[in-house]
Amino acid sequence: MTADLTVFQETMLPAVEQAMQAVLARARCEDHDDLYHMLAYHMGWEGEGAGPKARGKRIRPLLLLLTTAAAGGNWHRAVPAAAAVELLHNFSLIHDDIEDRGETRRGRPTVWARWGLPLALNSGDALFTLAHIAMLELHPPVDAETTLIAARILHQTALHLTQGQHMDIAFEHRDLVTVDEYWQMVEGKTAALIAACTDLGALLGGADDTHRRAYREFGRMLGLAFQAWDDYLGIWGDAALTGKSTTGDLLERKKTLPILYGLQQGSAFARAWEQGHPHTPAEVPALAAALETDGARAYTEAVAASLTTQALEALDEAAPQGDAGAALRSLAHHLLRREH
Amino acid sequence: MTADLTVFQETMLPAVEQAMQAVLARARCEDHDDLYHMLAYHMGWEGEGAGPKARGKRIRPLLLLLTTAAAGGNWHRAVPAAAAVELLHNFSLIHDDIEDRGETRRGRPTVWARWGLPLALNSGDALFTLAHIAMLELHPPVDAETTLIAARILHQTALHLTQGQHMDIAFEHRDLVTVDEYWQMVEGKTAALIAACTDLGALLGGADDTHRRAYREFGRMLGLAFQAWDDYLGIWGDAALTGKSTTGDLLERKKTLPILYGLQQGSAFARAWEQGHPHTPAEVPALAAALETDGARAYTEAVAASLTTQALEALDEAAPQGDAGAALRSLAHHLLRREH
Repeated sequence: MTADLTVFQETMLPAVEQAMQAVLARARCEDHDDLYHMLAYHMGWEGEGAGPKARGKRIRPLLLLLTTAAAGGNWHRAVPAAAAVELLHNFSLIHDDIEDRGETRRGRPTVWARWGLPLALNSGDALFTLAHIAMLELHPPVDAETTLIAARILHQTALHLTQGQHMDIAFEHRDLVTVDEYWQMVEGKTAALIAACTDLGALLGGADDTHRRAYREFGRMLGLAFQAWDDYLGIWGDAALTGKSTTGDLLERKKTLPILYGLQQGSAFARAWEQGHPHTPAEVPALAAALETDGARAYTEAVAASLTTQALEALDEAAPQGDAGAALRSLAHHLLRREH
Repeated sequence: MTADLTVFQETMLPAVEQAMQAVLARARCEDHDDLYHMLAYHMGWEGEGAGPKARGKRIRPLLLLLTTAAAGGNWHRAVPAAAAVELLHNFSLIHDDIEDRGETRRGRPTVWARWGLPLALNSGDALFTLAHIAMLELHPPVDAETTLIAARILHQTALHLTQGQHMDIAFEHRDLVTVDEYWQMVEGKTAALIAACTDLGALLGGADDTHRRAYREFGRMLGLAFQAWDDYLGIWGDAALTGKSTTGDLLERKKTLPILYGLQQGSAFARAWEQGHPHTPAEVPALAAALETDGARAYTEAVAASLTTQALEALDEAAPQGDAGAALRSLAHHLLRREH
């Protein structure tokens, strides 16, 4: 990362962390503090393994605040919105882990794995509520009308998230999922929240409608491109190809973009997959090669590259200003130019 | 119920139902409508057994709108808030049913029993979001400041609900729960939402702070009294005593008010309970008698009567006006003077 981006990160993210902590303190009761401690554990603040690694990268609030500053606004006023999007993201992780039966996240036991499903589900509901509470902290100094618009964006995003998550869960039980359906799912599950970050950032930075639309489109395309690269790396990243990684998408039989593309070709890869392969890590490289023969590698790379271009073009249209603008471009490049 | 109350019910509730339907239509996608249909099923609008019985009594929106009218406001403007509280209540039912493994509700399979846990959990999240979306429909014509206050009340209530639910779940795994802890749990799980209904109703009806506080206290006491009577009937209601009802609280070993009171006395009832009785419906009447000997019946009845009095006194202080005021009193009496 560039020096500029690091400076913003080190200034903005502690402010967001502090705002989230202040909001979560609302969940404390005198004698019955267990619910709060579950949430503080999930946020990476408490318990075994607490620390920066357990917190994740806090990319979403950073995007939001950089956008506010790059649009010419005072990012300090947008901190409640940045806290809200990060809390919303974290709420969705608690529930996703239950839905997927995921037992570890960021190297630690998930909330349900530690406290059991009923309390974990309920703690996710609490964090969802706290995200909404955080957003309304915008007012004052942000005016009531703008705060309502921001709250509506958060709600609409949360609804879109559940629509994407519904599709994702439903896909697991289906043999056939089209590439079109896949993109609909990703729009909700990944792109909606990133688009909300840049949209909220632009709104609170005082961008006009044209620039706000461009910022929103930048976030959306960034989310889609990020997912396409992630899917690419899930098969042709080093660890995935050796089959040693727990994220080897072929071994986990995930319905990612290259796999769905491959299945639509109906050739050797599709036949092997339909017979339940790969069963072992040793089978992974041959299946990845079959997928490449089907054109899935070239297709995924081309799609990811095209989405990346569209994201950066939208960012150009948004015309981010000053040091924050430079840092925002730097963050976009950092997120999109990953090793592959 | 009195004729007045019935007239209000027949005017107000269809407007709420329509508002909820309009909000839920936001969850529809062109091709992927499954999530919407899960919610429409849960709301009692669709699927086997759909109809008034599957919808529940819609007491909460009725309380809210009657309060608005009794405080001198135009109840039509408060319909979005009434829709929001009913959607919030219904969201909590979807998640409670997962947490308690409840397989039927209002005579039909629960959402998770029908669609499986992951999709059901996610559909609850969608309904939670839709409740928030409904609330912001207040503006316009309600001004932005008041709409923000209403949204904050909804969020605070949702947080309180999760705190009560956390305690309720945690109690299941504990041998000892005090009567004080029980009341803390009921404050969150039952009273908070009823208090929010009368508070929101008064806010949107234009009540001054003093009357709004009285309306809120009326709702809170109504919720507590309702729960106390419910606990009473769960043991000394006819069906509960014969042990034939599925809601016999002794047989289900629920930690309700009279049972917790009895356990604190440490006599014959407590010893039998600690040994795991009752095992069968036939044992229920003797245990209920032992509980009565401990004074639990008299205690619960006295507490319920006292809370009822406090609820009605708070309502007097709120001084509800006109036909809606009379209907509100009538509803309170109807809810509190149940057969016992």
